[in-house]
Amino acid sequence: MTFPSIALELPPWISDVCEPGSRYPSIEDRIDLVFNLARNNFERETGGPFGAAVFDRDGRLLAPGVNLVVPTNIAAAHAEIMAIGIAGRVVGSFDLGPTELVASTDPCAMCLGAVPWSGVQRLVCGAHTEDAAAIGFEEGDRMIDWVQRLERRGVEVIRGVKRDEGAALLSDYARSGGVIYNGRAAG
Amino acid sequence: MTFPSIALELPPWISDVCEPGSRYPSIEDRIDLVFNLARNNFERETGGPFGAAVFDRDGRLLAPGVNLVVPTNIAAAHAEIMAIGIAGRVVGSFDLGPTELVASTDPCAMCLGAVPWSGVQRLVCGAHTEDAAAIGFEEGDRMIDWVQRLERRGVEVIRGVKRDEGAALLSDYARSGGVIYNGRAAG
Repeated sequence: MTFPSIALELPPWISDVCEPGSRYPSIEDRIDLVFNLARNNFERETGGPFGAAVFDRDGRLLAPGVNLVVPTNIAAAHAEIMAIGIAGRVVGSFDLGPTELVASTDPCAMCLGAVPWSGVQRLVCGAHTEDAAAIGFEEGDRMIDWVQRLERRGVEVIRGVKRDEGAALLSDYARSGGVIYNGRAAG
Repeated sequence: MTFPSIALELPPWISDVCEPGSRYPSIEDRIDLVFNLARNNFERETGGPFGAAVFDRDGRLLAPGVNLVVPTNIAAAHAEIMAIGIAGRVVGSFDLGPTELVASTDPCAMCLGAVPWSGVQRLVCGAHTEDAAAIGFEEGDRMIDWVQRLERRGVEVIRGVKRDEGAALLSDYARSGGVIYNGRAAG
């Protein structure tokens, strides 16, 4: 008997939505992509309503990510973890350097903890923690001054980009009857 | 062009050290296993000096994990994330339920954030954060009362099991010239 390995693959529809190296010039273009990833992920029933992506300093897409917790049974398979992991393989280093992580919702405690380890130099978020909480998703225990703490580490933080759209997609997920999971599978 | 996927495989030597379902009756037996994983991982040059494992309520090994950040270029490939992910595949749920996560060192901010999402009901740690810091590894920004916060979520926390041995293996890693990496690849 052997232990299984961890395999996280992007869903097949990713190639309909984006491709490696495409350029997203503005911050709005980049947040639109991660909203699009989040929405496709739940509408096509491949995972939860969260998307993320890593871009290089010219706005070129290095790595997308979507939440795959429920289909893979891997609790850590959040969109940001996936985007950071794929980006590391693309750039050939765990230190992503002058890159930007864009997340459809403020990162949870785990993903926030991953940000400094990834070496990204900017974090951009759409929906707020409160918007996720409004449909029952918990984000965990984060330092109250997490933005300032990231900035002291040299990570610029921009929150609330197109927040209303980000919040709307979360509401749409809840209305569609999507599973709200946290630490416990049920309830 | 397509994006790569994330593949995290346990190193081949794992089968020399442990096998699925073996029973580790005492907490000391279980911490010994994760120290053994950590030590093998750096001595056999397959990753950093950190090991973790998930056990069922009878002390049976569900999933081991080792730190694979440097060899895989995946910043999130910490031992705890790996053990949680493999355990999810073994039990067939992202909610690991009445299980225990054992870590060779207090978990970093990211891995600590993953603990509630994993559903484990007990966290056992060996070396302290300060022991990792003593050789230059940073653990990130965690709430000062992280133990109490986990306990309020129903996760029992037991720290410092055979701490001296856990600290000694970290020192041995540093003495062996092992790479001390944090968010930045160099320095």
